Amino acid sequence: MATDPDRIWTAALIVIGDEILSGRTHDKNIAQVASWLGVQGIRLREVRVVPDVEDAIVEAVNTLRARNDYLFTTGGIGPTHDDITVDAVAAALGVEVVIHPAARAILEGYYATRGGLNEGRLRMARVPAGAELIENKMSGAPGIRLGNVFLMAGVPHITAQMLASLDGALEGGAPLLSETIGCWVAESEVAGLLRESERAHEQCQIGSYPFFREGRVGANFVIRSTDAASIAACSATVSEGLAALGREAVAGGI
Amino acid sequence: MATDPDRIWTAALIVIGDEILSGRTHDKNIAQVASWLGVQGIRLREVRVVPDVEDAIVEAVNTLRARNDYLFTTGGIGPTHDDITVDAVAAALGVEVVIHPAARAILEGYYATRGGLNEGRLRMARVPAGAELIENKMSGAPGIRLGNVFLMAGVPHITAQMLASLDGALEGGAPLLSETIGCWVAESEVAGLLRESERAHEQCQIGSYPFFREGRVGANFVIRSTDAASIAACSATVSEGLAALGREAVAGGI
Repeated sequence: MATDPDRIWTAALIVIGDEILSGRTHDKNIAQVASWLGVQGIRLREVRVVPDVEDAIVEAVNTLRARNDYLFTTGGIGPTHDDITVDAVAAALGVEVVIHPAARAILEGYYATRGGLNEGRLRMARVPAGAELIENKMSGAPGIRLGNVFLMAGVPHITAQMLASLDGALEGGAPLLSETIGCWVAESEVAGLLRESERAHEQCQIGSYPFFREGRVGANFVIRSTDAASIAACSATVSEGLAALGREAVAGGI
Repeated sequence: MATDPDRIWTAALIVIGDEILSGRTHDKNIAQVASWLGVQGIRLREVRVVPDVEDAIVEAVNTLRARNDYLFTTGGIGPTHDDITVDAVAAALGVEVVIHPAARAILEGYYATRGGLNEGRLRMARVPAGAELIENKMSGAPGIRLGNVFLMAGVPHITAQMLASLDGALEGGAPLLSETIGCWVAESEVAGLLRESERAHEQCQIGSYPFFREGRVGANFVIRSTDAASIAACSATVSEGLAALGREAVAGGI
């Protein structure tokens, strides 16, 4: 059975944690998960940040897993009382929480020289029934996969390790490619050019991202498509249009 | 009519933009809006990151404005074709898009010495019918308020200006206070202490945030409450509990 080469694979991400919603912690997982998914040929379609509240997690899990190929969560899988992701996901999926024997063995090994297992540490072996483990080389406690739902750590460098252990393991489509053109111009001067360029290259989307640097305004124009030739053609249209306005296009962005 | 002093005021935030979902741009608005809301006595309850797609924005706007006191959006109010926030919010609210005369006047003034108004720049005077403006000292184009919905810029330092111009303007409740205790300890060693401490001080929540630094594990414990005395009492319980385990509590966190 051939897979449709034009099929777009999608994912959603739920960032779980009061510390993000209070502003105390600056999230780093959205960008990291987004970039990793892009390489796998999967588009991140939506993100929700929810508090450490079971009902809020359940609602987000059930909405997002139904309408995306994959659902990732970050946060709330540690040993303390505020780590309720496993319980909430199990509730959302209508399964029990069980101790995963392999997770228990991993934690016993990891903590053998670090004071041994205790009640808090054993919490990290709890999984929704039927789940598999995702390897965590960094700190013992594994991530968790159940069907199309992936539970990852909240600490970004542990999440990075868990993502790395999933490299190439998920079915995806054509990666979304992009090319960036920078220009020292107010985006409002070239809004028409960008709109017309996008219309002329229907396989491409153009995003415009203004900035203020060195006391001057500029913008980066990001051309996205799954087709490299379309990007090259659209990029040429934008660069020529900028040149016609007396503006220099900076390949790769500013 | 007296306001309930225990009423909790809530807000939601919608971050609009393909550049966040692609991983290209690291969001800075979630933490900034969250911190600002905290000072106003308003709790950020949920965040959604959605693409530059009208249906996705409409769904998020209508869900979140109904169940929160305030709804903020960031992104998509600039001059280019991918800036569709105003149209999407107007569609969500069932109102037309109109040119706001004062916004037009602001833009005419701002661009008088910058090449004049053009079609793209005039887009930034478009608002959902009935909206008021939010001042933007930084770059002319104003933010937009309609009822409990606030449309802010995507560029973080412009959003910061818009938030500053709303300082003290929104009704809120008691600000959520917090105190942080740091400790060079694996959080899994003190999970029981944290759970018991939270149970003993029911007006407080304790969040536990582990880290790895200088080759050692540690954690910060953040005690949150609207009541300063409760925080102080809970903080003492945690510090004494750590001391009883032979661990030093670092006031203010590590």
